Amino acid sequence: MNDRTATPVTVIGLGLMGQALAAAFLKAGHPTTVWNRTTSRADQLVAGGARLAPTVGDALQASPLTIICVTDYEAVHELLGASDGTLEGTTLINLTSGTSAQARQAAQRAAGRGARYLDGAIMAIPQTIGTDEAVILHSGPRADLEPYEQTLGVLGTITYLGADPGLASLYDAAGLAMMWSVLNAWLQGTALLRTAGVDAATFAPFAREIATGVAGWLPGYAEQVDGGSFPAEVSALETDARAMAHLVEESEAAGVNAELPKLIKAMADRAIAAGHGGEQYPVLIEEFVTPRSG
Amino acid sequence: MNDRTATPVTVIGLGLMGQALAAAFLKAGHPTTVWNRTTSRADQLVAGGARLAPTVGDALQASPLTIICVTDYEAVHELLGASDGTLEGTTLINLTSGTSAQARQAAQRAAGRGARYLDGAIMAIPQTIGTDEAVILHSGPRADLEPYEQTLGVLGTITYLGADPGLASLYDAAGLAMMWSVLNAWLQGTALLRTAGVDAATFAPFAREIATGVAGWLPGYAEQVDGGSFPAEVSALETDARAMAHLVEESEAAGVNAELPKLIKAMADRAIAAGHGGEQYPVLIEEFVTPRSG
Ligand SMILES: NC(=O)c1ccc[n+]([C@@H]2O[C@H](COP(=O)([O-])OP(=O)(O)OC[C@H]3O[C@@H](n4cnc5c(N)ncnc54)[C@H](OP(=O)(O)O)[C@@H]3O)[C@@H](O)[C@H]2O)c1
Ligand SMILES: NC(=O)c1ccc[n+]([C@@H]2O[C@H](COP(=O)([O-])OP(=O)(O)OC[C@H]3O[C@@H](n4cnc5c(N)ncnc54)[C@H](OP(=O)(O)O)[C@@H]3O)[C@@H](O)[C@H]2O)c1
Repeated sequence: MNDRTATPVTVIGLGLMGQALAAAFLKAGHPTTVWNRTTSRADQLVAGGARLAPTVGDALQASPLTIICVTDYEAVHELLGASDGTLEGTTLINLTSGTSAQARQAAQRAAGRGARYLDGAIMAIPQTIGTDEAVILHSGPRADLEPYEQTLGVLGTITYLGADPGLASLYDAAGLAMMWSVLNAWLQGTALLRTAGVDAATFAPFAREIATGVAGWLPGYAEQVDGGSFPAEVSALETDARAMAHLVEESEAAGVNAELPKLIKAMADRAIAAGHGGEQYPVLIEEFVTPRSG
Repeated sequence: MNDRTATPVTVIGLGLMGQALAAAFLKAGHPTTVWNRTTSRADQLVAGGARLAPTVGDALQASPLTIICVTDYEAVHELLGASDGTLEGTTLINLTSGTSAQARQAAQRAAGRGARYLDGAIMAIPQTIGTDEAVILHSGPRADLEPYEQTLGVLGTITYLGADPGLASLYDAAGLAMMWSVLNAWLQGTALLRTAGVDAATFAPFAREIATGVAGWLPGYAEQVDGGSFPAEVSALETDARAMAHLVEESEAAGVNAELPKLIKAMADRAIAAGHGGEQYPVLIEEFVTPRSG
């Protein structure tokens, strides 16, 4: 069901995620070339109309746009090293997960080969690829993304973050930190409430409401951070610290894990010791920008 | 502006919060008796129509319903110790912050004096008292709360949690853990993004969206916790742990605080070591219910 007017695309790496990406392109009618180290993983896509390239080099030449999605950046470098020749005229979008430093390094290497390069991060599971629910972050030169925004749109919601190719990895890490933190706080509360016979289902809507409410404060708190001024309009850190002591005490007395409560309190205590007890919570940014490994 | 049909109330403790509570009762037309250790803090309320009781004992006798809101439970016990005689016919609602153990102990002592007792926790700042935005948690015998639900409603949104008087403190601690966790994750991300020149205001809406989205998963995840079964429908803990390594690496490489990322990873690593790598995130409940202090 190829559409002759649709941009041809190549997908390199046919793991769980790569297969979902290639399938979404095929479904939208894009002539789709695929390559995978283990050839058999292409079988279903080939049956669905994809073309299997014999080599990585061939795969890279087959389309103006190539998506790479493999385990890690080491694999990306192996792949690009395996093909020689120029990549002039090729736009590479690397959706492999990694750090911002790895993304910036890959961008440099790709540029050295003449390719246009954008780095991305998939904030979604393979099952949602092809729906708006799948958010895919992109960073790199905007002008190089623009010609392919519509093509990439068949994968999900394309979010452009800026010219620095490291941004997608940074936002990804930051977003995941938020995800795990909401989940961990909920588990901490669930563990505490369980000691009083309250089940997780009873507590969850309460936790959801608090998380949603606090999320709504972030844009306002961001103004304090950007302005570098933290007037205690709502409450002072010192007051928070007293309630943090209750949280630690509750957790220890209930016999549940107290590491998260203790870290929360330790960070506030340090800010108070640094003279910020009369200021508002976002003053803690000063602790968060300070290197410390626990 | 007292309303003869409105329930008379007493407020003991006129700090920032107690004053706001008494003012809300006055405004709603309740005959309001107040008492505070430092008498002068009653001046404004008396000017507004409140009656100042000469002693704690007198304050407790003046109304069928008494709210106590002082610094801590030590102060509560001092106050109740200072008045002798029965508290038969009195309903005490203690909105002082503390732990669930303190609340249960206070409930027992109050019962020993013949009082009906509920323990509460104010999830609000004084400025919002008297509006629906002010959520006030209550726990204790439901039958003792019911006659006063309407009266208490003038303070804010009254939420009843159950018969165990410790529940309000537990929910309060759990809710605050969520609040601080959302804020800390946001600050972690803000610190990371700042190293790439992204300001807090740019990152905040992204963080808000993730927090809100993940909050929506909690009721579904709660079913896994209550069922004790954690099939990896979305992703396996092992996969999460690889991304956690990126978060730690990003934080260390960027030269920001890595304590929160490391704690996130340590808890997942322990669950994986315990054999849960193929299960889904909420399996971490087993780590959270296990005592450990870091
Ligand atoms: N799955 C998800 O839910 C999800 C979500 C967001 C992001 N991601 C990211 O997407 C990327 C791929 O994930 P996945 O789930 O598709 O992983 P996967 O199922 O484990 O597949 C890994 C892919 O990488 C290939 N590969 C690994 N090392 C290679 C090498 N040295 N040379 C050539 N190819 C190599 C594998 O080829 P073989 O088939 O030959 O082994 C396979 O195609 C990862 O960076 C992951 O973090 C995944
Ligand atoms: N303010 C908030 O934003 C907020 C929010 C939620 C919950 N709360 C909780 O509400 C409670 C009161 O807070 P607040 O903000 O009103 O505090 P506050 O302004 O510091 O006032 C403390 C009150 O406690 C009284 N007190 C302390 N020790 C006493 C003792 N041994 N005997 C008799 N009275 C004593 C004080 O009397 P004196 O005037 O004589 O010193 C004063 O009335 C606390 O448990 C707090 O955690 C407050």
